[in-house]
Amino acid sequence: MNISARNALKGTVTDIAKGQIVAKVKVDVGGQTVCSIVSVEAVDDLGLKVGDEISAIVKATEVMLAK
Amino acid sequence: MNISARNALKGTVTDIAKGQIVAKVKVDVGGQTVCSIVSVEAVDDLGLKVGDEISAIVKATEVMLAK
Amino acid sequence: MNISARNALKGTVTDIAKGQIVAKVKVDVGGQTVCSIVSVEAVDDLGLKVGDEISAIVKATEVMLAK
Amino acid sequence: MNISARNALKGTVTDIAKGQIVAKVKVDVGGQTVCSIVSVEAVDDLGLKVGDEISAIVKATEVMLAK
Amino acid sequence: MNISARNALKGTVTDIAKGQIVAKVKVDVGGQTVCSIVSVEAVDDLGLKVGDEISAIVKATEVMLAK
Amino acid sequence: MNISARNALKGTVTDIAKGQIVAKVKVDVGGQTVCSIVSVEAVDDLGLKVGDEISAIVKATEVMLAK
Repeated sequence: MNISARNALKGTVTDIAKGQIVAKVKVDVGGQTVCSIVSVEAVDDLGLKVGDEISAIVKATEVMLAK
Repeated sequence: MNISARNALKGTVTDIAKGQIVAKVKVDVGGQTVCSIVSVEAVDDLGLKVGDEISAIVKATEVMLAK
Repeated sequence: MNISARNALKGTVTDIAKGQIVAKVKVDVGGQTVCSIVSVEAVDDLGLKVGDEISAIVKATEVMLAK
Repeated sequence: MNISARNALKGTVTDIAKGQIVAKVKVDVGGQTVCSIVSVEAVDDLGLKVGDEISAIVKATEVMLAK
Repeated sequence: MNISARNALKGTVTDIAKGQIVAKVKVDVGGQTVCSIVSVEAVDDLGLKVGDEISAIVKATEVMLAK
Repeated sequence: MNISARNALKGTVTDIAKGQIVAKVKVDVGGQTVCSIVSVEAVDDLGLKVGDEISAIVKATEVMLAK
């Protein structure tokens, strides 16, 4: 399946911190860190572990710019 | 000012396409392309131009993961 | 690839209206209409047409509830 | 009051899991499950319970498409 | 109907600019301007006009903080 | 740095409730309460405390309208 979201940044999971409902996952994307907050359910469903090669997906309308 | 958003990816503006209300801005972030849709007003306020060094800002709750 | 977004609603594209930068796509999901605003680029990349079977993907943090 | 959000999917609450700050609520929408993450405060304010008839509200700009 | 979104800021519509698919609506909220980008369809459905008393609704997970 | 987000509402932090991963922060904006859910990491990084003067930042595409 292809998704309409314009951003799919390839990276490696470097850290996973789980709460009760949501988890914070850090991903190394070409030397910059991307931080994602997703449901614990999603982390478990995807079987996410540190070291996994993943894509960080972001809809273009959610990306702001600063200069 | 520091912002709570966890993601500030440094990159270079490579393309700007303006509509009437929103614009699509592409940013090279370490060889991967980040696409942002923001208001034309914001593009004009920031004086954005191709070649600008900027940060792509994303709140962690807006980042999904795919594996 | 599996995505962390918890919502993937199966439906049929019923309408596509394109602007310059974004497009509005309507999807019939079990008799209820889901409306999506995505980039025109995404509509073209996915080759979306009325009648297509697709999934409407929504991150759980973007879903509000009303009672 | 009418809201600008284009998506109001009618369904029935099937599960509520509360953390300290946020809660995960599952809703049956015509046989497909919609998952929402909202504040515990909102769940308590709305007096949400399993079996409630509710609407899942999503802004069109938050809906992605996959094909 | 009550909605789970935690933010409902009362204000007055001061400006509406319509594109083909989305519109930019400005709202005076106690002397500060709130800017919203919603679908033209929503503006027409709500019959929005300058001078209208409305609420600007924002899900708490979409609010960032800067200090 | 200037950010593309169109909404920067000045206010005072009135309450902070921390969970494991996310925190709920309440801000008084001209007599109306704005509620934000951000990562605990962000609250700690910004050194947020009740009484702080801050800005509540919201991207225009995340603001809905109700009438």
